[in-house]
Amino acid sequence: MRPIRVVIPFKLDCAKSRLSSVLSSEEREGLALAMLEDVIDVVSGLGRVSILMKDPLPEAGVFNRLRSRSEIELIECPQELDPALNSMIEAEKRKGWPSYLLIAMADLPLMRPSDLEGLVRTPGDVVIVPGRGGGTNLILVRDPKFRVSYYGLSFLKHLKVAEELGLSVGVYESFRCGSDIDEPSDLVEVLIHGRGRTPEILRKLGFELSGRREKARAGCHR
Amino acid sequence: MRPIRVVIPFKLDCAKSRLSSVLSSEEREGLALAMLEDVIDVVSGLGRVSILMKDPLPEAGVFNRLRSRSEIELIECPQELDPALNSMIEAEKRKGWPSYLLIAMADLPLMRPSDLEGLVRTPGDVVIVPGRGGGTNLILVRDPKFRVSYYGLSFLKHLKVAEELGLSVGVYESFRCGSDIDEPSDLVEVLIHGRGRTPEILRKLGFELSGRREKARAGCHR
Repeated sequence: MRPIRVVIPFKLDCAKSRLSSVLSSEEREGLALAMLEDVIDVVSGLGRVSILMKDPLPEAGVFNRLRSRSEIELIECPQELDPALNSMIEAEKRKGWPSYLLIAMADLPLMRPSDLEGLVRTPGDVVIVPGRGGGTNLILVRDPKFRVSYYGLSFLKHLKVAEELGLSVGVYESFRCGSDIDEPSDLVEVLIHGRGRTPEILRKLGFELSGRREKARAGCHR
Repeated sequence: MRPIRVVIPFKLDCAKSRLSSVLSSEEREGLALAMLEDVIDVVSGLGRVSILMKDPLPEAGVFNRLRSRSEIELIECPQELDPALNSMIEAEKRKGWPSYLLIAMADLPLMRPSDLEGLVRTPGDVVIVPGRGGGTNLILVRDPKFRVSYYGLSFLKHLKVAEELGLSVGVYESFRCGSDIDEPSDLVEVLIHGRGRTPEILRKLGFELSGRREKARAGCHR
Protein backbone atom coordinates (compact mmCIF):
# COMPACT_ATOMS: atom_id res chain seq x y z
CA MET A 1 0.00 0.00 0.00
CA ARG A 2 1.31 3.46 -0.92
CA PRO A 3 2.40 5.40 2.20
CA ILE A 4 -0.21 7.84 3.39
CA ARG A 5 0.27 11.03 5.37
CA VAL A 6 -2.15 10.91 8.30
CA VAL A 7 -3.41 13.93 10.23
CA ILE A 8 -5.41 13.64 13.45
CA PRO A 9 -6.79 16.86 14.89
CA PHE A 10 -6.99 16.66 18.67
CA LYS A 11 -8.24 18.93 21.43
CA LEU A 12 -7.79 18.19 25.10
CA ASP A 13 -9.35 21.37 26.45
CA CYS A 14 -13.07 20.78 27.07
CA ALA A 15 -12.65 17.36 25.45
CA LYS A 16 -15.84 15.36 24.89
CA SER A 17 -18.10 17.90 26.60
CA ARG A 18 -21.24 16.02 25.53
CA LEU A 19 -20.21 13.26 27.93
CA SER A 20 -20.26 15.63 30.91
CA SER A 21 -23.47 14.10 32.28
CA VAL A 22 -21.67 10.80 32.90
CA LEU A 23 -17.95 11.67 33.16
CA SER A 24 -15.99 14.36 35.01
CA SER A 25 -13.69 16.70 33.11
CA GLU A 26 -10.64 14.66 34.11
CA GLU A 27 -12.30 11.37 33.15
CA ARG A 28 -13.27 12.81 29.76
CA GLU A 29 -9.65 13.85 29.16
CA GLY A 30 -8.52 10.33 30.02
CA LEU A 31 -11.08 8.85 27.64
CA ALA A 32 -10.12 11.26 24.85
CA LEU A 33 -6.45 10.31 25.24
CA ALA A 34 -7.25 6.59 25.27
CA MET A 35 -9.27 6.97 22.06
CA LEU A 36 -6.46 9.00 20.46
CA GLU A 37 -3.93 6.27 21.23
CA ASP A 38 -6.27 3.55 19.92
CA VAL A 39 -6.73 5.52 16.68
CA ILE A 40 -2.97 6.10 16.36
CA ASP A 41 -2.33 2.37 16.76
CA VAL A 42 -4.58 1.69 13.78
CA VAL A 43 -3.51 4.50 11.43
CA SER A 44 0.22 4.41 12.16
CA GLY A 45 0.45 1.35 9.91
CA LEU A 46 -0.32 3.62 6.94
CA GLY A 47 2.50 6.15 7.22
CA ARG A 48 3.68 9.22 9.09
CA VAL A 49 1.10 10.54 11.59
CA SER A 50 0.75 14.20 12.60
CA ILE A 51 -1.31 15.07 15.65
CA LEU A 52 -2.62 18.58 15.16
CA MET A 53 -3.23 20.19 18.55
CA LYS A 54 -5.00 23.48 19.07
CA ASP A 55 -3.86 23.88 22.68
CA PRO A 56 -0.28 24.03 23.96
CA LEU A 57 1.07 20.49 24.13
CA PRO A 58 0.15 19.06 27.51
CA GLU A 59 2.50 17.15 29.73
CA ALA A 60 0.24 14.08 29.82
CA GLY A 61 2.10 10.77 29.89
CA VAL A 62 0.51 9.86 26.56
CA PHE A 63 2.31 12.73 24.84
CA ASN A 64 5.65 11.77 26.31
CA ARG A 65 5.09 8.28 24.88
CA LEU A 66 4.08 9.73 21.51
CA ARG A 67 7.06 12.11 21.42
CA SER A 68 9.38 9.11 21.62
CA ARG A 69 7.94 7.54 18.46
CA SER A 70 9.74 8.70 15.33
CA GLU A 71 6.76 8.11 13.01
CA ILE A 72 4.60 10.52 15.03
CA GLU A 73 4.80 14.29 14.87
CA LEU A 74 3.07 16.56 17.39
CA ILE A 75 2.12 19.92 15.90
CA GLU A 76 0.77 22.82 17.90
CA CYS A 77 -1.53 24.89 15.72
CA PRO A 78 -3.67 27.66 17.21
CA GLN A 79 -5.97 27.90 14.15
CA GLU A 80 -9.53 26.58 14.14
CA LEU A 81 -10.12 23.09 12.70
CA ASP A 82 -10.95 23.99 9.08
CA PRO A 83 -8.15 26.55 8.45
CA ALA A 84 -5.68 24.34 10.32
CA LEU A 85 -6.43 21.32 8.11
CA ASN A 86 -6.69 23.33 4.91
CA SER A 87 -3.30 24.95 5.64
CA MET A 88 -1.89 21.47 6.08
CA ILE A 89 -3.26 20.36 2.69
CA GLU A 90 -1.75 23.54 1.13
CA ALA A 91 1.60 22.88 2.83
CA GLU A 92 1.69 19.26 1.64
CA LYS A 93 0.87 20.46 -1.87
CA ARG A 94 3.76 22.94 -1.80
CA LYS A 95 6.07 20.14 -0.68
CA GLY A 96 5.13 18.22 -3.84
CA TRP A 97 2.07 16.26 -2.60
CA PRO A 98 4.05 13.07 -2.24
CA SER A 99 1.15 10.83 -1.31
CA TYR A 100 -2.42 10.72 -0.08
CA LEU A 101 -3.50 12.67 2.97
CA LEU A 102 -5.83 10.96 5.44
CA ILE A 103 -7.67 13.12 7.96
CA ALA A 104 -8.90 10.95 10.84
CA MET A 105 -10.93 12.05 13.82
CA ALA A 106 -9.50 11.08 17.20
CA ASP A 107 -12.71 9.56 18.59
CA LEU A 108 -12.98 6.38 16.50
CA PRO A 109 -11.84 3.66 18.88
CA LEU A 110 -13.73 0.88 17.06
CA MET A 111 -11.76 1.40 13.84
CA ARG A 112 -9.61 -1.52 12.66
CA PRO A 113 -6.89 -1.83 10.01
CA SER A 114 -9.34 -3.68 7.72
CA ASP A 115 -11.57 -0.59 7.68
CA LEU A 116 -8.66 1.52 6.45
CA GLU A 117 -7.88 -1.05 3.75
CA GLY A 118 -11.46 -0.70 2.52
CA LEU A 119 -11.19 3.08 2.61
CA VAL A 120 -7.92 3.15 0.65
CA ARG A 121 -9.40 0.78 -1.98
CA THR A 122 -12.31 3.18 -2.59
CA PRO A 123 -11.75 5.28 -5.72
CA GLY A 124 -12.23 9.05 -5.84
CA ASP A 125 -10.20 12.28 -5.75
CA VAL A 126 -11.55 12.44 -2.25
CA VAL A 127 -13.15 9.66 -0.21
CA ILE A 128 -15.49 10.61 2.61
CA VAL A 129 -16.43 8.37 5.54
CA PRO A 130 -19.74 9.39 7.11
CA GLY A 131 -20.20 9.41 10.85
CA ARG A 132 -23.48 8.94 12.65
CA GLY A 133 -25.68 12.02 12.62
CA GLY A 134 -24.37 13.60 9.43
CA GLY A 135 -20.73 14.08 10.42
CA THR A 136 -17.51 13.16 8.63
CA ASN A 137 -15.23 10.77 10.47
CA LEU A 138 -12.42 10.31 7.95
CA ILE A 139 -11.44 11.91 4.67
CA LEU A 140 -8.90 10.48 2.26
CA VAL A 141 -7.62 13.35 0.12
CA ARG A 142 -6.01 12.31 -3.15
CA ASP A 143 -6.31 15.69 -4.90
CA PRO A 144 -4.85 18.67 -2.98
CA LYS A 145 -7.48 21.01 -4.43
CA PHE A 146 -9.92 19.66 -1.82
CA ARG A 147 -10.78 21.78 1.22
CA VAL A 148 -12.43 20.59 4.41
CA SER A 149 -15.52 22.12 5.97
CA TYR A 150 -16.31 20.54 9.33
CA TYR A 151 -19.06 21.33 11.81
CA GLY A 152 -22.77 20.87 11.23
CA LEU A 153 -23.82 18.26 8.68
CA SER A 154 -20.29 18.06 7.33
CA PHE A 155 -20.85 14.88 5.31
CA LEU A 156 -23.17 16.75 2.94
CA LYS A 157 -20.91 19.82 3.04
CA HIS A 158 -17.91 17.75 1.96
CA LEU A 159 -19.86 16.19 -0.91
CA LYS A 160 -20.79 19.71 -2.04
CA VAL A 161 -17.24 21.09 -1.72
CA ALA A 162 -15.92 18.25 -3.88
CA GLU A 163 -18.64 18.77 -6.47
CA GLU A 164 -17.99 22.51 -6.64
CA LEU A 165 -14.27 21.88 -7.13
CA GLY A 166 -14.96 19.35 -9.90
CA LEU A 167 -13.47 16.47 -7.90
CA SER A 168 -14.70 12.88 -8.01
CA VAL A 169 -16.01 11.64 -4.67
CA GLY A 170 -16.04 8.20 -3.14
CA VAL A 171 -18.08 7.38 -0.06
CA TYR A 172 -16.81 4.63 2.22
CA GLU A 173 -19.38 3.46 4.72
CA SER A 174 -18.34 1.45 7.74
CA PHE A 175 -20.05 0.45 10.97
CA ARG A 176 -16.80 0.88 12.91
CA CYS A 177 -15.54 4.07 11.23
CA GLY A 178 -19.05 5.52 11.47
CA SER A 179 -19.13 5.12 15.25
CA ASP A 180 -17.61 8.26 16.73
CA ILE A 181 -17.87 8.44 20.49
CA ASP A 182 -19.46 11.68 21.62
CA GLU A 183 -22.44 10.95 23.83
CA PRO A 184 -23.41 8.64 26.68
CA SER A 185 -25.38 6.39 24.32
CA ASP A 186 -22.17 5.81 22.30
CA LEU A 187 -20.31 4.25 25.23
CA VAL A 188 -22.18 0.96 24.89
CA GLU A 189 -20.63 0.54 21.42
CA VAL A 190 -17.17 0.72 22.95
CA LEU A 191 -18.01 -1.86 25.61
CA ILE A 192 -19.54 -4.25 23.06
CA HIS A 193 -17.37 -3.79 19.97
CA GLY A 194 -14.17 -2.16 21.26
CA ARG A 195 -10.70 -3.45 21.94
CA GLY A 196 -7.65 -1.68 23.30
CA ARG A 197 -7.39 1.17 25.77
CA THR A 198 -10.83 2.72 25.36
CA PRO A 199 -13.02 -0.14 26.66
CA GLU A 200 -10.35 -0.76 29.30
CA ILE A 201 -10.57 2.80 30.63
CA LEU A 202 -14.39 2.71 30.64
CA ARG A 203 -14.33 -0.51 32.65
CA LYS A 204 -11.80 1.03 35.05
CA LEU A 205 -14.18 3.96 35.47
CA GLY A 206 -16.83 1.45 36.50
CA PHE A 207 -18.92 1.22 33.33
CA GLU A 208 -20.54 -2.10 32.58
CA LEU A 209 -23.18 -3.30 30.16
CA SER A 210 -26.73 -3.30 31.36
CA GLY A 211 -29.26 -5.77 30.03
CA ARG A 212 -31.35 -3.01 28.50
CA ARG A 213 -30.89 -1.66 25.06
CA GLU A 214 -32.19 1.80 24.48
CA LYS A 215 -30.07 3.98 22.31
CA ALA A 216 -31.21 7.25 23.90
CA ARG A 217 -30.15 5.92 27.28
CA ALA A 218 -26.76 4.51 27.97
CA GLY A 219 -27.13 0.76 27.31
CA CYS A 220 -24.51 0.63 30.02
CA HIS A 221 -24.16 2.07 33.50
CA ARG A 222 -21.65 2.75 36.25
CA MET B 1 -26.65 -16.68 -5.34
CA ARG B 2 -28.48 -19.56 -3.64
CA PRO B 3 -32.12 -18.65 -2.93
CA ILE B 4 -32.67 -17.55 0.64
CA ARG B 5 -35.85 -17.73 2.68
CA VAL B 6 -36.40 -14.29 4.22
CA VAL B 7 -38.49 -13.58 7.32
CA ILE B 8 -39.37 -10.08 8.43
CA PRO B 9 -41.17 -9.75 11.77
CA PHE B 10 -43.50 -6.75 11.76
CA LYS B 11 -45.74 -5.08 14.29
CA LEU B 12 -48.09 -2.24 13.44
CA ASP B 13 -49.71 -1.88 16.85
CA CYS B 14 -47.75 0.70 18.90
CA ALA B 15 -45.21 0.81 16.07
CA LYS B 16 -42.07 2.85 16.71
CA SER B 17 -43.22 4.12 20.10
CA ARG B 18 -39.84 5.72 20.82
CA LEU B 19 -40.64 8.23 18.07
CA SER B 20 -43.76 9.42 19.86
CA SER B 21 -42.15 12.71 20.86
CA VAL B 22 -41.92 13.76 17.21
CA LEU B 23 -44.60 11.71 15.38
CA SER B 24 -48.26 10.92 16.06
CA SER B 25 -49.42 7.31 16.27
CA GLU B 26 -50.77 7.46 12.73
CA GLU B 27 -47.56 9.03 11.39
CA ARG B 28 -45.49 6.36 13.10
CA GLU B 29 -47.59 3.64 11.46
CA GLY B 30 -47.06 5.31 8.08
CA LEU B 31 -43.33 5.46 8.68
CA ALA B 32 -43.18 1.82 9.83
CA LEU B 33 -45.02 0.71 6.67
CA ALA B 34 -42.74 2.80 4.43
CA MET B 35 -39.67 1.23 6.05
CA LEU B 36 -41.17 -2.26 5.68
CA GLU B 37 -41.72 -1.73 1.97
CA ASP B 38 -38.20 -0.32 1.51
CA VAL B 39 -36.77 -3.38 3.28
CA ILE B 40 -38.93 -5.74 1.20
CA ASP B 41 -37.70 -4.09 -2.01
CA VAL B 42 -34.12 -4.90 -1.02
CA VAL B 43 -34.54 -8.43 0.36
CA SER B 44 -37.04 -9.70 -2.20
CA GLY B 45 -34.16 -10.14 -4.64
CA LEU B 46 -32.90 -12.98 -2.44
CA GLY B 47 -35.89 -15.29 -2.42
CA ARG B 48 -39.33 -15.85 -0.93
CA VAL B 49 -40.23 -13.30 1.77
CA SER B 50 -42.50 -14.00 4.74
CA ILE B 51 -43.85 -11.10 6.77
CA LEU B 52 -44.54 -12.37 10.26
CA MET B 53 -47.25 -10.27 11.87
CA LYS B 54 -48.26 -10.47 15.49
CA ASP B 55 -51.49 -8.52 15.03
CA PRO B 56 -54.40 -9.42 12.76
CA LEU B 57 -53.50 -8.39 9.22
CA PRO B 58 -54.53 -4.77 8.79
CA GLU B 59 -56.38 -3.43 5.78
CA ALA B 60 -53.67 -0.86 5.02
CA GLY B 61 -53.10 -0.26 1.31
CA VAL B 62 -49.54 -1.55 1.68
CA PHE B 63 -50.84 -5.00 2.63
CA ASN B 64 -53.19 -5.13 -0.31
CA ARG B 65 -50.19 -4.36 -2.54
CA LEU B 66 -48.09 -7.02 -0.78
CA ARG B 67 -50.89 -9.63 -1.01
CA SER B 68 -50.81 -9.30 -4.77
CA ARG B 69 -47.12 -10.21 -4.98
CA SER B 70 -46.61 -13.96 -5.34
CA GLU B 71 -43.11 -13.97 -3.81
CA ILE B 72 -44.45 -12.46 -0.57
CA GLU B 73 -46.33 -14.36 2.10
CA LEU B 74 -48.19 -12.63 4.95
CA ILE B 75 -48.32 -14.78 8.08
CA GLU B 76 -50.35 -13.93 11.16
CA CYS B 77 -48.63 -15.31 14.24
CA PRO B 78 -49.81 -14.39 17.75
CA GLN B 79 -46.63 -15.62 19.44
CA GLU B 80 -43.98 -13.27 20.82
CA LEU B 81 -40.97 -12.50 18.63
CA ASP B 82 -38.54 -15.18 19.85
CA PRO B 83 -40.93 -18.17 19.87
CA ALA B 84 -42.45 -17.03 16.57
CA LEU B 85 -39.08 -16.95 14.83
CA ASN B 86 -37.79 -20.11 16.49
CA SER B 87 -40.96 -21.97 15.44
CA MET B 88 -40.32 -20.78 11.91
CA ILE B 89 -36.75 -22.14 11.99
CA GLU B 90 -38.15 -25.45 13.35
CA ALA B 91 -40.79 -25.58 10.62
CA GLU B 92 -38.25 -24.89 7.88
CA LYS B 93 -36.05 -27.63 9.30
CA ARG B 94 -38.95 -30.11 9.22
CA LYS B 95 -39.59 -29.18 5.60
CA GLY B 96 -35.99 -30.19 4.81
CA TRP B 97 -34.14 -26.89 5.38
CA PRO B 98 -33.88 -26.18 1.71
CA SER B 99 -31.80 -23.04 1.96
CA TYR B 100 -30.57 -20.33 4.26
CA LEU B 101 -32.97 -18.38 6.43
CA LEU B 102 -32.48 -14.64 6.73
CA ILE B 103 -34.21 -12.80 9.55
CA ALA B 104 -34.37 -9.09 8.76
CA MET B 105 -35.76 -6.35 10.94
CA ALA B 106 -38.33 -4.10 9.27
CA ASP B 107 -36.73 -0.79 10.27
CA LEU B 108 -33.61 -0.80 8.10
CA PRO B 109 -34.49 1.63 5.31
CA LEU B 110 -30.84 2.44 4.50
CA MET B 111 -30.04 -1.17 3.57
CA ARG B 112 -29.00 -1.79 -0.05
CA PRO B 113 -28.58 -5.00 -2.09
CA SER B 114 -24.77 -4.66 -1.85
CA ASP B 115 -25.05 -4.96 1.96
CA LEU B 116 -26.87 -8.26 1.57
CA GLU B 117 -24.24 -9.51 -0.86
CA GLY B 118 -21.61 -8.81 1.79
CA LEU B 119 -23.71 -10.57 4.41
CA VAL B 120 -24.23 -13.67 2.30
CA ARG B 121 -20.49 -13.85 1.51
CA THR B 122 -19.66 -13.93 5.23
CA PRO B 123 -18.92 -17.48 6.43
CA GLY B 124 -20.45 -19.01 9.54
CA ASP B 125 -23.24 -21.39 10.60
CA VAL B 126 -24.92 -18.18 11.62
CA VAL B 127 -24.00 -14.62 10.63
CA ILE B 128 -25.06 -11.78 12.90
CA VAL B 129 -25.37 -8.14 11.86
CA PRO B 130 -25.08 -5.78 14.83
CA GLY B 131 -27.32 -2.78 15.15
CA ARG B 132 -26.49 0.40 17.00
CA GLY B 133 -26.75 0.10 20.77
CA GLY B 134 -26.15 -3.63 21.05
CA GLY B 135 -29.07 -4.90 18.98
CA THR B 136 -29.21 -7.45 16.16
CA ASN B 137 -30.51 -6.13 12.85
CA LEU B 138 -30.17 -9.20 10.63
CA ILE B 139 -29.32 -12.85 11.16
CA LEU B 140 -28.40 -15.26 8.41
CA VAL B 141 -29.11 -18.78 9.69
CA ARG B 142 -27.32 -21.56 7.83
CA ASP B 143 -27.67 -24.20 10.55
CA PRO B 144 -31.23 -24.84 11.80
CA LYS B 145 -29.96 -25.64 15.29
CA PHE B 146 -29.69 -21.89 15.91
CA ARG B 147 -32.29 -20.14 18.06
CA VAL B 148 -32.91 -16.40 18.27
CA SER B 149 -32.99 -14.40 21.49
CA TYR B 150 -34.01 -10.81 20.85
CA TYR B 151 -34.53 -7.93 23.27
CA GLY B 152 -31.84 -6.33 25.42
CA LEU B 153 -28.27 -6.53 24.16
CA SER B 154 -29.23 -9.21 21.66
CA PHE B 155 -25.99 -9.02 19.66
CA LEU B 156 -24.07 -10.46 22.60
CA LYS B 157 -26.90 -12.89 23.38
CA HIS B 158 -26.83 -14.25 19.83
CA LEU B 159 -23.05 -14.72 19.97
CA LYS B 160 -23.53 -16.66 23.20
CA VAL B 161 -26.40 -18.81 21.86
CA ALA B 162 -24.28 -19.82 18.86
CA GLU B 163 -21.31 -20.62 21.06
CA GLU B 164 -23.41 -22.75 23.42
CA LEU B 165 -24.83 -24.67 20.45
CA GLY B 166 -21.34 -25.25 19.05
CA LEU B 167 -22.08 -23.24 15.90
CA SER B 168 -19.54 -21.10 14.05
CA VAL B 169 -20.44 -17.43 14.01
CA GLY B 170 -19.72 -14.72 11.46
CA VAL B 171 -20.24 -11.06 12.23
CA TYR B 172 -21.09 -8.76 9.34
CA GLU B 173 -20.75 -5.09 10.19
CA SER B 174 -22.33 -2.47 7.99
CA PHE B 175 -23.03 1.23 8.38
CA ARG B 176 -26.35 0.86 6.54
CA CYS B 177 -27.52 -2.43 8.08
CA GLY B 178 -26.46 -1.14 11.49
CA SER B 179 -28.74 1.88 11.25
CA ASP B 180 -32.13 0.82 12.58
CA ILE B 181 -34.58 3.67 12.90
CA ASP B 182 -36.05 3.87 16.39
CA GLU B 183 -35.51 7.31 17.82
CA PRO B 184 -35.72 10.95 16.76
CA SER B 185 -31.94 11.18 16.39
CA ASP B 186 -32.09 8.33 13.82
CA LEU B 187 -34.30 10.28 11.41
CA VAL B 188 -31.42 12.43 10.21
CA GLU B 189 -29.74 9.26 8.86
CA VAL B 190 -32.78 8.61 6.68
CA LEU B 191 -32.80 12.15 5.32
CA ILE B 192 -29.06 12.08 4.56
CA HIS B 193 -28.44 8.50 3.45
CA GLY B 194 -31.90 7.14 2.53
CA ARG B 195 -33.62 6.50 -0.75
CA GLY B 196 -37.10 5.22 -1.46
CA ARG B 197 -40.30 5.65 0.49
CA THR B 198 -38.89 6.35 3.95
CA PRO B 199 -37.13 9.68 3.29
CA GLU B 200 -40.06 10.60 1.05
CA ILE B 201 -42.59 10.12 3.83
CA LEU B 202 -40.44 12.05 6.32
CA ARG B 203 -40.21 14.96 3.89
CA LYS B 204 -43.98 14.82 3.34
CA LEU B 205 -44.38 14.99 7.12
CA GLY B 206 -42.38 18.22 7.03
CA PHE B 207 -38.99 16.99 8.24
CA GLU B 208 -35.93 18.70 6.85
CA LEU B 209 -32.26 18.75 7.71
CA SER B 210 -31.09 21.39 10.09
CA GLY B 211 -27.57 22.78 9.93
CA ARG B 212 -26.75 21.43 13.37
CA ARG B 213 -25.36 18.05 14.09
CA GLU B 214 -25.98 16.71 17.52
CA LYS B 215 -26.80 13.08 17.72
CA ALA B 216 -28.86 13.37 20.91
CA ARG B 217 -31.05 15.97 19.21
CA ALA B 218 -32.69 15.43 15.90
CA GLY B 219 -30.17 16.81 13.37
CA CYS B 220 -33.37 17.54 11.52
CA HIS B 221 -36.59 19.33 12.37
CA ARG B 222 -40.15 19.84 11.20
